Amino acid sequence: MSAYTIGVDYGTNSVRAVVVDTANGHVVGTRVFDYPSGEQGVLLDARQPHLARQNPADYIEGLRVAVSGALHEAEGDRTFARERVIGIGVDTTGSTPLPIDAHNRPLAVNPRWEANLAAHAWLWKDHTSAAEAAAITETAARYNPELLEPIGGTYSSEWWWSKIWHCLKVAPDVFDAAASWVELADFIPAVLSGVHEAHGVVRCVCAAGHKAMYSEAWGGLPPKDFLARLDPKLADLRGRLYDRALPPGTPAGQLSADWAHKFGLREGIAVAMGGFDAHYGAVGSGIRTGTLVKIIGTSTCDCAIAPTSAHIANVPGICGIVNGSIMPGYFGIEAGQSAVGDLLKWWVEGICKPSPASGPGGVDAVHEQLSTDAAALAPGESGLMALDWNNGNRTILVDTRLTGLLLGQTLHTTRAEVYRALIEATAYGARAIVERLREYGVTIDRVVCCGGIAEKNDLFMQIYADVLGQPMLIAGSPQTPALGAALSAAVTAGAGAGGYAGWQEAQDHMTGVKEKAFTPNPEAHAVYEVLYGIYRELHDAFGGVAGARPDLATLMKRLLTLKEQKAVARV
Amino acid sequence: MSAYTIGVDYGTNSVRAVVVDTANGHVVGTRVFDYPSGEQGVLLDARQPHLARQNPADYIEGLRVAVSGALHEAEGDRTFARERVIGIGVDTTGSTPLPIDAHNRPLAVNPRWEANLAAHAWLWKDHTSAAEAAAITETAARYNPELLEPIGGTYSSEWWWSKIWHCLKVAPDVFDAAASWVELADFIPAVLSGVHEAHGVVRCVCAAGHKAMYSEAWGGLPPKDFLARLDPKLADLRGRLYDRALPPGTPAGQLSADWAHKFGLREGIAVAMGGFDAHYGAVGSGIRTGTLVKIIGTSTCDCAIAPTSAHIANVPGICGIVNGSIMPGYFGIEAGQSAVGDLLKWWVEGICKPSPASGPGGVDAVHEQLSTDAAALAPGESGLMALDWNNGNRTILVDTRLTGLLLGQTLHTTRAEVYRALIEATAYGARAIVERLREYGVTIDRVVCCGGIAEKNDLFMQIYADVLGQPMLIAGSPQTPALGAALSAAVTAGAGAGGYAGWQEAQDHMTGVKEKAFTPNPEAHAVYEVLYGIYRELHDAFGGVAGARPDLATLMKRLLTLKEQKAVARV
Repeated sequence: MSAYTIGVDYGTNSVRAVVVDTANGHVVGTRVFDYPSGEQGVLLDARQPHLARQNPADYIEGLRVAVSGALHEAEGDRTFARERVIGIGVDTTGSTPLPIDAHNRPLAVNPRWEANLAAHAWLWKDHTSAAEAAAITETAARYNPELLEPIGGTYSSEWWWSKIWHCLKVAPDVFDAAASWVELADFIPAVLSGVHEAHGVVRCVCAAGHKAMYSEAWGGLPPKDFLARLDPKLADLRGRLYDRALPPGTPAGQLSADWAHKFGLREGIAVAMGGFDAHYGAVGSGIRTGTLVKIIGTSTCDCAIAPTSAHIANVPGICGIVNGSIMPGYFGIEAGQSAVGDLLKWWVEGICKPSPASGPGGVDAVHEQLSTDAAALAPGESGLMALDWNNGNRTILVDTRLTGLLLGQTLHTTRAEVYRALIEATAYGARAIVERLREYGVTIDRVVCCGGIAEKNDLFMQIYADVLGQPMLIAGSPQTPALGAALSAAVTAGAGAGGYAGWQEAQDHMTGVKEKAFTPNPEAHAVYEVLYGIYRELHDAFGGVAGARPDLATLMKRLLTLKEQKAVARV
Repeated sequence: MSAYTIGVDYGTNSVRAVVVDTANGHVVGTRVFDYPSGEQGVLLDARQPHLARQNPADYIEGLRVAVSGALHEAEGDRTFARERVIGIGVDTTGSTPLPIDAHNRPLAVNPRWEANLAAHAWLWKDHTSAAEAAAITETAARYNPELLEPIGGTYSSEWWWSKIWHCLKVAPDVFDAAASWVELADFIPAVLSGVHEAHGVVRCVCAAGHKAMYSEAWGGLPPKDFLARLDPKLADLRGRLYDRALPPGTPAGQLSADWAHKFGLREGIAVAMGGFDAHYGAVGSGIRTGTLVKIIGTSTCDCAIAPTSAHIANVPGICGIVNGSIMPGYFGIEAGQSAVGDLLKWWVEGICKPSPASGPGGVDAVHEQLSTDAAALAPGESGLMALDWNNGNRTILVDTRLTGLLLGQTLHTTRAEVYRALIEATAYGARAIVERLREYGVTIDRVVCCGGIAEKNDLFMQIYADVLGQPMLIAGSPQTPALGAALSAAVTAGAGAGGYAGWQEAQDHMTGVKEKAFTPNPEAHAVYEVLYGIYRELHDAFGGVAGARPDLATLMKRLLTLKEQKAVARV
């Protein structure tokens, strides 16, 4: 008899729920809910271009609509029945912290605070806290350098403490009104479990370790005296947060009577530990030692694991190495790129701007046309080189205060050439990450990709294979984060309840890769070796890498020469 | 009784004729003829992106249609009569050489050669001869360094010898078939004068001195032994070219019976010395000591003059300082930027690409919208910085093998922000030229602009005033090159024929500036001081300026900080 679990995936613009058959990982029901607030779910402020918030009410409403919808669709499957659902798992964007009151209610749903953007959820890509991030890095480097070791040496403006501290500075009333702060990844499981007290929220080590400088090595969150150096109020807050954070597999709670009733599910089924979309995406992609999972969407998150018995040094510029953050018993290693799909979206929607006259399919049609035209180009043929930093650089420079760069353009440069150059730039960024990981002892001999772009954009995947010199495999499921969350729920429920006793067993049954894969073209790879070298000259020069020795005076000429060789080769 | 002269202006895409009242410079008749061949008059080759040629047949047909049309329109003026026309002057793009046969016929009009692109006119912006230009510079630097002094130290791929030598290499049959080569600026006056022998073509010092390394200091064209080092056939060609080149004011000929008949004009009226559009544009803008004339169109040409009695050193990176090239008795000083209007055209037509659905006015509408949006931005507010090198750098780096650069872009960067950044980049390039000229003793205390952009784009002109910290005046005539050619014809005809005895007197009557001028905003200028510094860091680094010490690691951050300050200032 089949058992089912539910995975709920909170993305940047929408939330998706899937109902999964634990026997084979097949999705039998799915539903997406687009956040109704702001611009595509993101609250913006014209005066603060770096601000990106979300309305927590969208999360709750999305939970109800998406899960109900997915279950309703699952009813169409002949073996499905609601009583066979044995657990629910949740993954979210992160770090996306929000302030809550003493009863685990978001401040933002209180009419007193709802107009205040600081009381809403601080979306991962909110970059208002650059000054705080810099001060945290500086203070830690001086007084507690150990805090920076697992997070790549630099604290980011996208992360927990930067955002909470910025809130304290710009909206002290919101800060004072918050009984505690929670990551979205912890908030939703607590909601499902009917947690009505702020101190009852169970915290996942994935958010804690990667974003809040939590480590058992120093007894949990950063020491009180460290936080006091930032602001005494942050030190006070520490006591209202948490002492312990837990890996996946440990339950976050049991489904409350209230939500069980809403969904027609059994009360008390397992609520899995929350986790970030990337980590559960890696689980749903079948991550194992030696496998790099790339979740390629608006941004990219790279995940690898290494047995805790392995001697993995801290890797400079890699955002996080945290014990148990992806699967218990392994270091979870996380890296990422801040703008990947977003970079192409910017080019198409922000610059090429299909006219309203071209209809609602205009944007997709332009993407498709540019992909087709870009695919006809040989590597090096455009003469262009870009840096993929329109949203800063997350790995390996860990610097949000970097910006995009495009060079090599002539009066004949086309949209499609730039489109391809932007894809290539993200591929070079991806390669920089792989090289850094290998340099520090992390084995990478297999790359599995998932996310919207991996699914749909063949040109993109081929360029990645050619730039990395490595086959690109595609995860079997198009919804790996939700699948990973559902898989986590199956492991959390356990074999006795119809789930699994272990992660490997669950992955063997529930995950896989597609037959279609992208293998490197040796000729293209050879050109990309040269182009990657040029990318690194610019990357290192503008990224402030110590000892960078770019030869800028010849750089444009080298690209031109390559371009001319390609033009000649075409004749 | 009024006298009239005709000015004929050969541009990149069309030829324009004007009939001018010599008493006041008023245009009483005008006609434009678009070259019918190629793409907007330019012959291209998909396999050679740097190739740009023109069909000489278009020039002849254009001469007939444009002059006839302008005269026809002039008939509408009540004081005009064809017998009152006392001269005709011609200005053209340059260096635009073409091969001719022994009878001063372009090879390209011969069916034997018409399919061969090498037999057509080599348009100024043809960049196929980069290797030859480099070899000429190298050879001259080694054996005849004096040759490089008046041309800024570097011979360009846009110039006479590079192009002819490239023709010899790639199309030796064309080279061998040519009795001689002529600049377009000399060819048209010779046609009008009925010159039917190649050796009868009168040559202007403006083309000879700026593009063909002609100087009285070494007795004309470069020595035969120098040319023989390049190729013995070039040394042979020297004898079939010319010994002497002449300044404006000296007649190029008299109107032939044939053309007089075609136009209904008197046979034998003055045909002025040909000249480049920029130089005659400077004359038509009222150039004098201390005045910089900027002719701003697809590209920009900057002209200044200095009395031949002044001690003006050779200025490195300034394309030319030639005795008598603009007006007799003065050094003509020429600089320029390879892409100005073309840069905006590329952005709008190549990248923003108004859809066909938006109608024939689509391109203009997009330019207008982007101008309006860009005008609403404060200096520094976009965070962007561009280099204006999509078509190489003519001054002060003299390097066609440079390409465009844009940096500072985020995911929110708009078309209008880039549009403004491109305008600003050309303004920084303009400032680099002014600074270089002043540094070497050329007085510049007044800037007069002409050309399509100066006429129409207020945002562009204001940015130039703010970046240069100098008022931008606008020439009184919208057609200064044609007016300058007509003025030259009036001086050449002389006071006895109803023209003028001297240039200053002719300019006082025939030229002026508009009341409307653009004055620098001190606040904007202060920001542009900082931004120009950043531009120069990039310019010097990528341009290979010796001793460049850019601080690239902080460059993006400095732009971001400026951007944030502007955003704060708006609140």
